[in-house]
Amino acid sequence: MIKKLLIANRGEIAVRIIRACKELNIESVAIYSEADKESLHVRLADEAYCVGPTASKDSYLNFTNIMGVAMLTGCDAIHPGYGFLSENADFAELCRECNVTFVGPTSESISKMGTKDVARETMREAGVPIVPGSQGIIESVEDAVTIAEEIGYPVIIKATAGGGGKGIRVARDESSLRKGVEITQQEAATAFGNPGVYLEKYIEDFRHVEIQVLADEFGNTIHLGERDCSIQRRLQKLVEETPSPALDGEMRAKMGEAAVKAAQAVQYRGAGTVEFIYDYRERKFYFMEMNTRIQVEHPVTEMVTGIDLIKEQIKVANHEKLSYTQEDVTFSGWAIECRINAENPAKNFMPSPGEINMYLPPGGFGVRVDSAVYSGYKIPPFYDSMIAKLIVHAPTREEAVARMRRALSEFVIEGVDTTIPFHLNLFQHEKFIEGEFNTKFLEEHEVMKSK
Amino acid sequence: MIKKLLIANRGEIAVRIIRACKELNIESVAIYSEADKESLHVRLADEAYCVGPTASKDSYLNFTNIMGVAMLTGCDAIHPGYGFLSENADFAELCRECNVTFVGPTSESISKMGTKDVARETMREAGVPIVPGSQGIIESVEDAVTIAEEIGYPVIIKATAGGGGKGIRVARDESSLRKGVEITQQEAATAFGNPGVYLEKYIEDFRHVEIQVLADEFGNTIHLGERDCSIQRRLQKLVEETPSPALDGEMRAKMGEAAVKAAQAVQYRGAGTVEFIYDYRERKFYFMEMNTRIQVEHPVTEMVTGIDLIKEQIKVANHEKLSYTQEDVTFSGWAIECRINAENPAKNFMPSPGEINMYLPPGGFGVRVDSAVYSGYKIPPFYDSMIAKLIVHAPTREEAVARMRRALSEFVIEGVDTTIPFHLNLFQHEKFIEGEFNTKFLEEHEVMKSK
Repeated sequence: MIKKLLIANRGEIAVRIIRACKELNIESVAIYSEADKESLHVRLADEAYCVGPTASKDSYLNFTNIMGVAMLTGCDAIHPGYGFLSENADFAELCRECNVTFVGPTSESISKMGTKDVARETMREAGVPIVPGSQGIIESVEDAVTIAEEIGYPVIIKATAGGGGKGIRVARDESSLRKGVEITQQEAATAFGNPGVYLEKYIEDFRHVEIQVLADEFGNTIHLGERDCSIQRRLQKLVEETPSPALDGEMRAKMGEAAVKAAQAVQYRGAGTVEFIYDYRERKFYFMEMNTRIQVEHPVTEMVTGIDLIKEQIKVANHEKLSYTQEDVTFSGWAIECRINAENPAKNFMPSPGEINMYLPPGGFGVRVDSAVYSGYKIPPFYDSMIAKLIVHAPTREEAVARMRRALSEFVIEGVDTTIPFHLNLFQHEKFIEGEFNTKFLEEHEVMKSK
Repeated sequence: MIKKLLIANRGEIAVRIIRACKELNIESVAIYSEADKESLHVRLADEAYCVGPTASKDSYLNFTNIMGVAMLTGCDAIHPGYGFLSENADFAELCRECNVTFVGPTSESISKMGTKDVARETMREAGVPIVPGSQGIIESVEDAVTIAEEIGYPVIIKATAGGGGKGIRVARDESSLRKGVEITQQEAATAFGNPGVYLEKYIEDFRHVEIQVLADEFGNTIHLGERDCSIQRRLQKLVEETPSPALDGEMRAKMGEAAVKAAQAVQYRGAGTVEFIYDYRERKFYFMEMNTRIQVEHPVTEMVTGIDLIKEQIKVANHEKLSYTQEDVTFSGWAIECRINAENPAKNFMPSPGEINMYLPPGGFGVRVDSAVYSGYKIPPFYDSMIAKLIVHAPTREEAVARMRRALSEFVIEGVDTTIPFHLNLFQHEKFIEGEFNTKFLEEHEVMKSK
């Protein structure tokens, strides 16, 4: 049994993991950068060690120092949280070599899902729907034109070595496709040293719907329903909810099955998320990617299923069987999460680090707050700007929306700007209240006027 | 429909009711005494008015001023919370006369349950089990001896006009009974102007188990399961949980049915609680009393049923039908509440009013905090000492106990003494962890050494 666990992360997710450890009677070891010595995760853990200076690459990504702390403190497991080392196959491999349990999938699973093309082909073979497109790299411009005619315009040209929004170009007709393929190949050759591009149908209006999966090493893989994360700004999720207002039972079952297939195709173990593009007009969904780690938005799934995802991660890493079968999983009510960031939504979401001189989270029935801040805490400007996750749970979406408005209205964070006013506006927006939104919602609707 | 509601209370229950109003889109009006102008309920309500000086009798019990505020602000309803005016039949009657909806039962229901003897006889007629004893007042000492021989010693002699632990005497044999009846009659005549006493069997080892009921004015009455409130100190509940570790399904069903019968016997409407003495050795339960109001410990029931009791109270008061039938009510997991008081448990629970200079409630999965304090809040010494209710919910009792320990351990309240150290000790006490306790637990076990 895991006795002592190092949390290779910071902020609210480090606090979340420490809480699970305390409830499981596992000793917790926190790490922190020089900028984070006053952080809540440092105070809550049983032990805490500085692993390097402010820059993430020198601290939270510092393999040597982190593994050194784990070894010296006698940790038998490391939980990477999300971000940082959570999807780093080399780190997972290092843990294996050092005989420390990595709370996550194997490095092989991480690698397979982390490489764009490999993931797409693995899913194709497994029978998981992928966006129609070329099979692998396109050979020539003529090939591209043939494929585009088959799948229909608009299409998207993607550099196989690209990522993070780079090496991507949309083409709406043949002439822009011909030009686009050439330019993207040239750019990719220069930027990534690999000119390979592939083609996919470009789905313009879709919802981001993802499925939570859990798997153990005994071949049991289950899904815990979906999360709708369509409210995004520049690909950053701001609001997540479950169930999705756009899914019916049939679609949910199909997507759930596909997600389980996806996980099984890479011998997945632990908690993971299969993200889908949901083309609600056509009632079709396509594999987008799999996140081989816990996600920021995992609490909404916990609220409606009652299943503690972090505890399940730890149990599975500890070679236990899943506590639940697919039949055990039931869904109750509606849960919504707002990410509260230290940003000024009226000034184009400009980050607003600094000292929180008053902090009072909302409370009461159906309200959960996951946060790592407190009155007097200084938000450092070096890491991400999320300071709290506000999650509500209620029997219906209407009641959950009302509860979120109530909770947002009583949330006190003084001293820095936050995205609370943005969320308050969003939760009064008619279309949002009706559940009618896709990933372009914030581009197409003025939720928050910039001053 | 109720549009504007006055909350005739203070502290966490006022905040609780304001939250429900916000979620139901009902305007809220707070009242406060001169000592409470910095209270959170004052800040959270849409409007707030001072109704008098510090003493409760001049402010929170001040009929005229409270009704005056209700009239002048156009409130169409008043929620009394618990304590103060919540079980005052005259106030309920005043509301009826003023055409303001009292969120609670009728004054007739309140009266019937508020008078000890009447409640006992009403329950006997309704077929609700009552503690064996005399039927009404005993005529003579000889009568008392006869009855005591029938029901068996020990017996308890109770003055019919007594209450609050006064006018009560236990007798373990005939000679102490003979003396006891005479002394209690004399004392009662002097203290209450009424020498009448009655006899009940004295049950020494019992658990306090109560049933939550909900009823509308259309004759629908349901129960929402039990709460075990056996952890008490001087008749004050400190910890409550549901389900009770001492009940099985059969007993739960029987007790639930009895509670519904009890409520129906007084044409009950709204949320109420039927308290029982549970003689776990004999597997028998007896009516203790009915509280005709919402209770402090209502959140544990909300956690396992998902039903918002305050919202249901308001809906029923608004002449709506209950949102749930008995069949709709399902129970999920285990919930426990700790009352966090500003008292020093190491100094015989001496009250510790004063300024809270740092307040950070616990958060995360399965944790709920109902409180009305904040960093910088000064706890006035004039009212009750409860400053927060910490409620946890988890799939099993074992997990709920672990979660409570975790939540208690991260609760920061600086500047005043609190009962958190007492609860931390209790949740590590073997007998408590095993669920083996009755109402004498704190007398018989040293949970907290006095310094």
